Amino acid sequence: MGVWRGDDDEARKQMEGRFFKVKTTEQVISILEGFHSLDEEFVALEQALGRVLSRDMFSPEDLPSFSRSSVDGFAVRAKDTFGATEAMPSLCEITGEVLMGEAPEGMVWSGAAWKIPTGGMLPEGADAVVMLEHSHRLDARTIEISRPVSPLENIILPGDDFSKGSLVLEKGKRLRSQDLGVLAGVGFLRVPVVRRPRVAVISTGDEIVPIGKTPGPGQVRDINGITLCSFCLSSGAEPITMGIIPDRLENLLKAVQASITAADMVWISGGSSVGVRDLTLKVFESMPDFELLVHGISISPGKPTIIARSGAKALVGLPGHVASALVVAEIFMGRLIARLSGGTGEGELAGPLEAVLSRNVESAPGREDYIRVRLTEKEGRRIAEPVFGKSGLISSLVVSDGLVRIEMNCEGLYEGEKVLVYPFTTALGGRRDMILPDAGLTAR
Amino acid sequence: MGVWRGDDDEARKQMEGRFFKVKTTEQVISILEGFHSLDEEFVALEQALGRVLSRDMFSPEDLPSFSRSSVDGFAVRAKDTFGATEAMPSLCEITGEVLMGEAPEGMVWSGAAWKIPTGGMLPEGADAVVMLEHSHRLDARTIEISRPVSPLENIILPGDDFSKGSLVLEKGKRLRSQDLGVLAGVGFLRVPVVRRPRVAVISTGDEIVPIGKTPGPGQVRDINGITLCSFCLSSGAEPITMGIIPDRLENLLKAVQASITAADMVWISGGSSVGVRDLTLKVFESMPDFELLVHGISISPGKPTIIARSGAKALVGLPGHVASALVVAEIFMGRLIARLSGGTGEGELAGPLEAVLSRNVESAPGREDYIRVRLTEKEGRRIAEPVFGKSGLISSLVVSDGLVRIEMNCEGLYEGEKVLVYPFTTALGGRRDMILPDAGLTAR
Repeated sequence: MGVWRGDDDEARKQMEGRFFKVKTTEQVISILEGFHSLDEEFVALEQALGRVLSRDMFSPEDLPSFSRSSVDGFAVRAKDTFGATEAMPSLCEITGEVLMGEAPEGMVWSGAAWKIPTGGMLPEGADAVVMLEHSHRLDARTIEISRPVSPLENIILPGDDFSKGSLVLEKGKRLRSQDLGVLAGVGFLRVPVVRRPRVAVISTGDEIVPIGKTPGPGQVRDINGITLCSFCLSSGAEPITMGIIPDRLENLLKAVQASITAADMVWISGGSSVGVRDLTLKVFESMPDFELLVHGISISPGKPTIIARSGAKALVGLPGHVASALVVAEIFMGRLIARLSGGTGEGELAGPLEAVLSRNVESAPGREDYIRVRLTEKEGRRIAEPVFGKSGLISSLVVSDGLVRIEMNCEGLYEGEKVLVYPFTTALGGRRDMILPDAGLTAR
Repeated sequence: MGVWRGDDDEARKQMEGRFFKVKTTEQVISILEGFHSLDEEFVALEQALGRVLSRDMFSPEDLPSFSRSSVDGFAVRAKDTFGATEAMPSLCEITGEVLMGEAPEGMVWSGAAWKIPTGGMLPEGADAVVMLEHSHRLDARTIEISRPVSPLENIILPGDDFSKGSLVLEKGKRLRSQDLGVLAGVGFLRVPVVRRPRVAVISTGDEIVPIGKTPGPGQVRDINGITLCSFCLSSGAEPITMGIIPDRLENLLKAVQASITAADMVWISGGSSVGVRDLTLKVFESMPDFELLVHGISISPGKPTIIARSGAKALVGLPGHVASALVVAEIFMGRLIARLSGGTGEGELAGPLEAVLSRNVESAPGREDYIRVRLTEKEGRRIAEPVFGKSGLISSLVVSDGLVRIEMNCEGLYEGEKVLVYPFTTALGGRRDMILPDAGLTAR
């Protein structure tokens, strides 16, 4: 049990002294660039939304593959219309009709016109299309054309969208609706994408009980587990919920070993006591090819964060307070997930929103403060209202819309000042699954 | 076959004249407010990310349910520390230790101190916690306290997060990670949410072939189907891919009837010819309780959009050009999906980004123009570069990051002008499924 495992305060402080060189946000972000894209997998186009391309994609064919009309009208030889005006229209004889989806059979000779719908294939002989609006039907077989068309006018040529061999989408592109559309258009049914990062989420702390259990005296439900797993889902990772692991060395060690096999990242969100943090580090240190990257970040909340690696796998010790853990996730873990997912991590996350601060906020020098704010509107301006609350409380998070960063050398912000608000990660309710915990590991 | 079904141009123009009163963006948005939230369903908390609450949620209990320490330190009676300084510390005898997750047994008497970890339950008798940093261990049983604490200092009281019966989250809230966390914290395992809208997506046009087929002369693959289904996924709806329906009255009628039974919305994205548009309207008109809401919107691209209802179901005819269809989806359909999902549709979508226009753009008066832009950065400023391209081409969409709106009465925008860029809807690659098409309907 023993939350006071590091009972000898002096020894503990020495150990902390050995490691506890807090890093700045910029240092941490630059350290995260040491992690790389995961491996490639092929997925069906229907499953590729939001995934990141692992290769450049070149078009295997021309799109479109034939000349098409871009309007409803008449396919003609452009020179037959040269000089046409309302007063002196050109006359053409209707000698055919293009049907959608069929190759027109026959030829548009000089003086002739074929009816053609938008998207229809241009018949041989024609080199332009007169818009319906610029034609007048004289009788069943004759039209007047009141405006000249140039050669190629109202025509989409083969390869106008993409020519065979041209670059359609670049490696590293996160696929949106239209990107899937174009891949479909040139005939890709499966696409090479970067595998989604799997994150094993471990809750620890002897006071934590599963959310389905009624907490006894001194106990609380596992808020961090579902919060962090949901954060993973919102950020494009696959959470593996490892459940609640008793904070004893042998249990935690076993859980981290299992996690490292199953996942690309291991997140431990501890009880908030110093003992659990020490234990987390101790367990991480025993993993193969261990390298400590970050032990403490000069931010508030979120200072007692550990980031390490075991080979290519990331080991993360998050603060025990859920508000602190979520701030660290928003600032660093979303970026790390994006990197492992094959994205750049830059510019992919929701951009900050400009707002005006509703009141003064103090900040301690020598660290960055992330304050939670609620967004409102007043006289057409976006207002950021600071939400205060002890970091152990989750209530401050649920009424907040995002975070405002106060720079390290800034002693505070003033009412009326323009600030950038980083909105909390949100998902729009697609069907998403969490991977079920391994019963053997999580049984208490 | 007959793409020219409305062969008599005059009759067609008359019919259009009867309906074709184009509406402005604002009128259409206000019309969409006539649609309401879908019904309620209960889902497991793990499945509720991004869903919208269908009821106010009140806390069934106090969170936390007991007084907790918010720091590592010593639980004491505050008055024992009054007047303590570095020079004249208070002395306390360590008479107990709080273990995480357990109710401390015993009493903190005057002059005594109990070790307590962050999150530990406050023992009886104590009313404050002295931080470890402000104490000094004299020997195994004695500490010096060098700073006074006030009653309740470093303590979280029962109900400090949420008291029993208080409002935790409001109806209409779209659930984020932290919202699921707090629901877990107060013991909800299932939550009442608004059902996700189902959208039946029909592609039509005789030139369209499935994406797995090699197009013959005059044919193209179904780009719109996957683009629009993916858009639905990104927006929190469940697409039902109805596949490609031949553009003949009886086929389309049967498909729309089946769609209206299975889905909350029917989207037809037609071939772009006038004939298909007429047919779409004709089929919609034959649905029960038909009401035409919008026939034409004064925007470019996207003008030939139809929005109607059949009872509570929305019937939508989208432009055939994929670029136009996606613009209409981005401006109107995302909002409609949000409304049906129980959200307000306001403020939920990604906020616009401010940028500086890289060159002059002309715009026709009397309509709103939505121009596609690519975002870049130059000297720390966000630049919006207009991307031009015929609306039939999808290539212009894949290189664009978002849309800039040019107001109806504006004749253009100037280089260097500040503009708002509405980013295209993006998803971050959670596992999402499309519902498979009904084979009977889509077989060609």
